[in-house]
Amino acid sequence: MRQDPVPPNDPVEQLVALLARIPGLGRRSARRAALRMLQDPERLMRPLSRALDAAAEAVSPCRVCGNLDSRDPCGICRDPRRERGLVCVVEGVSDLWALERAGAHRGLYHVLGGTLSALGGVSPEDLSIQPLVERVAKEGVEEVILALPATVEGASTGHYLADRLRPLSVPVTRLAQGVPMGGALDVLDDGTLAAALRARRPA
Amino acid sequence: MRQDPVPPNDPVEQLVALLARIPGLGRRSARRAALRMLQDPERLMRPLSRALDAAAEAVSPCRVCGNLDSRDPCGICRDPRRERGLVCVVEGVSDLWALERAGAHRGLYHVLGGTLSALGGVSPEDLSIQPLVERVAKEGVEEVILALPATVEGASTGHYLADRLRPLSVPVTRLAQGVPMGGALDVLDDGTLAAALRARRPA
Repeated sequence: MRQDPVPPNDPVEQLVALLARIPGLGRRSARRAALRMLQDPERLMRPLSRALDAAAEAVSPCRVCGNLDSRDPCGICRDPRRERGLVCVVEGVSDLWALERAGAHRGLYHVLGGTLSALGGVSPEDLSIQPLVERVAKEGVEEVILALPATVEGASTGHYLADRLRPLSVPVTRLAQGVPMGGALDVLDDGTLAAALRARRPA
Repeated sequence: MRQDPVPPNDPVEQLVALLARIPGLGRRSARRAALRMLQDPERLMRPLSRALDAAAEAVSPCRVCGNLDSRDPCGICRDPRRERGLVCVVEGVSDLWALERAGAHRGLYHVLGGTLSALGGVSPEDLSIQPLVERVAKEGVEEVILALPATVEGASTGHYLADRLRPLSVPVTRLAQGVPMGGALDVLDDGTLAAALRARRPA
């Protein structure tokens, strides 16, 4: 993320510079947003300011799974309806939230906090891997689902985790790769097409 | 702008709902932004919250021109280097800021606060038109430049203003219409092409 210096004096420029740090807002849209907000401060600025403070105060990483939540352990870890034997391993909290929005997973999660990367200098100690191994060893986990990105880093992290978990004799699975729902074949990349063809199933 | 109800309990959902009110951020990008912010609250949340409060406190419309600024009259109206006889009329503050970024105007401004619209129920009393007329009458204005949008409403507002200003015998001009810089002819709309052809000048 580009980090513009914050001009110290002018409140408008200062607001624009800080809004421009929000991922998804460029400098130009930050200026437009600031202007729109300044025309309706009681509805667009004061409540947001309070919500930022409240969330910064209340939200912290769950000590069990790494989810960000206002409770610790988080709402998912506390939920008695979740299958406690099924742990889905994700790279980051945004993946966890995406799976929750999809309502696709009925078990618990484990957030790694990244993927292994020799080039990026990310080694196993930088990720929440040892806590995952301990969790699987101690808490009667029956299946570990690796929901990692379909990248080189995601794949090598998956291999590393499978190696580390092998002594515990717990089944380790990973997400299927293939044609996305509604996806036209002719715009798909070669890798996805090849993977979908290799993983073909009876119709 | 869509106005989602703000969930009263969860601080994360509340932050997402309020971020989603920012023009330019949809629900999905608001969620992504909230997540990113929660991972670095001291840099991304606390300063923004303070800047929102500071700007909401300090910024108000300039009583002379309608610009939004932390001073009243605004920095432009106070600037002794600006040509006080040249007043550029704009629909909104965002247009004023765009002209300032372009460094295109060396005079002062007047923000109308909208354009006339029979369908939208916007009549002359809803806009800052009487203050403009008084300003032109009293302050030795030598030229009024209409920098209004090239829409039906912009054009009819321009005609109305020209009528209202005629008794004061001050030259009233409007922005040129034509091919934008770097614009390819074959993607331009018919109206712009026709206007550019009508307004052709010696090469």
